[in-house]
Amino acid sequence: MVSKNQIKLITSLQQKKFRKQHKLFIAEGVKVIQELIDANYKLNDLFTTQNDFSNLKTGKIHAITQADLKKISALTTPNTCLATFSIPENIKIELNGLVLALDSIRDPGNLGTIIRLCDWFGIETLLCSEETVDVYNPKVIQATMGSISRVSIVYCNLENELKESKIPVFGTFMDGKSIYNESLPHEGIIVMGNEANGISSTIEKIVSERISIPRFGNLQLTESLNVATATAIILNEFKRPN
Amino acid sequence: MVSKNQIKLITSLQQKKFRKQHKLFIAEGVKVIQELIDANYKLNDLFTTQNDFSNLKTGKIHAITQADLKKISALTTPNTCLATFSIPENIKIELNGLVLALDSIRDPGNLGTIIRLCDWFGIETLLCSEETVDVYNPKVIQATMGSISRVSIVYCNLENELKESKIPVFGTFMDGKSIYNESLPHEGIIVMGNEANGISSTIEKIVSERISIPRFGNLQLTESLNVATATAIILNEFKRPN
Repeated sequence: MVSKNQIKLITSLQQKKFRKQHKLFIAEGVKVIQELIDANYKLNDLFTTQNDFSNLKTGKIHAITQADLKKISALTTPNTCLATFSIPENIKIELNGLVLALDSIRDPGNLGTIIRLCDWFGIETLLCSEETVDVYNPKVIQATMGSISRVSIVYCNLENELKESKIPVFGTFMDGKSIYNESLPHEGIIVMGNEANGISSTIEKIVSERISIPRFGNLQLTESLNVATATAIILNEFKRPN
Repeated sequence: MVSKNQIKLITSLQQKKFRKQHKLFIAEGVKVIQELIDANYKLNDLFTTQNDFSNLKTGKIHAITQADLKKISALTTPNTCLATFSIPENIKIELNGLVLALDSIRDPGNLGTIIRLCDWFGIETLLCSEETVDVYNPKVIQATMGSISRVSIVYCNLENELKESKIPVFGTFMDGKSIYNESLPHEGIIVMGNEANGISSTIEKIVSERISIPRFGNLQLTESLNVATATAIILNEFKRPN
């Protein structure tokens, strides 16, 4: 059973300002919810149409109908369960090893896919500029498939953070040096730019190493890669044995 | 000006059965439309709110209002123009060089992104199983950003096509050999599987080379990569100099 007030609260969490106000976010589906619980995210409420979480020792489970789930879900086709979790406090991070930084990524699906890539390649820290889409956006949470629990994601003034970096800052540009020819280190910050505009001019000035992914197709016509696939190729090049 | 019949026809093209019936598909935005025209796709009608295509020598341009464009657009935020193009006949292709094959990719965004990757890496032929999402789906067309005009896309009975292949057939599996250790040839068919289920058992039997992308993150927890990012990494490994 879900009350009118709960419906109002939960659907409001689809908007960033209410997530900020209530310090809560939503996650849907057994897999994503279970991964967040396992990673010690603080569960607030869990609404389920099935007996999915019977081993969960908490009084916060609410049995609801499919019709009620539809009222609170952010998905076109609701799953069997939805949970609200507390947004953790921003942690202070040390920039070492390989770090990925996002300069104004706007698409929730791209951010979710990039978080999965960080998880795959063992990148522990993801810096996001303040203009980057909110990681607690329901579309991002769903696209991460639970991997959000294994990557530290920090929103920051990217310019200030990068300026203070003691490790090299890499950025991808059309005129950069080929990633196939460079000896890529085990330590550095890799900046990926906005879907439409690439890396901003403010951040470009701080980049110490300009790199590029060589093209093999028609050089005059092929324009660009999607930012998530470009991130996949670059992380692969940094991590693969040479 | 757009007539009621035109609105009915154009919006019907968002569905595969009507695209098949009318042998037409829609594309939106100056960039995508211009690339299709340049690649000699047969333009049927062009509706525009601006003087975008003034150098186009055809009587098929219709000036319309933004309100009319909204009625025919498949986008949440319509662009300035929409065109209908004829669907080309399926061509007979020779399987040589590097070929990508999709075994039941369902997400339009993934297919669009994979077509951009083929264009980037100079993969000229993309085989799609009949269960793969239709390439003329408006969401695929938009996601390709025009690169569809530079890749030959063929829907086929993938099992039969692969069985007849004279070049090796590669498939990605968790237990495959690391792509970092294998010497990857310049000729072969690379099969990518469905988002949820991977490569089907029918196709798995035809795969001659089982490969895998090594993981660097927490080996027990990280589950999988998105199919488009996995394709990016694999094509990069096949094409990069060693």
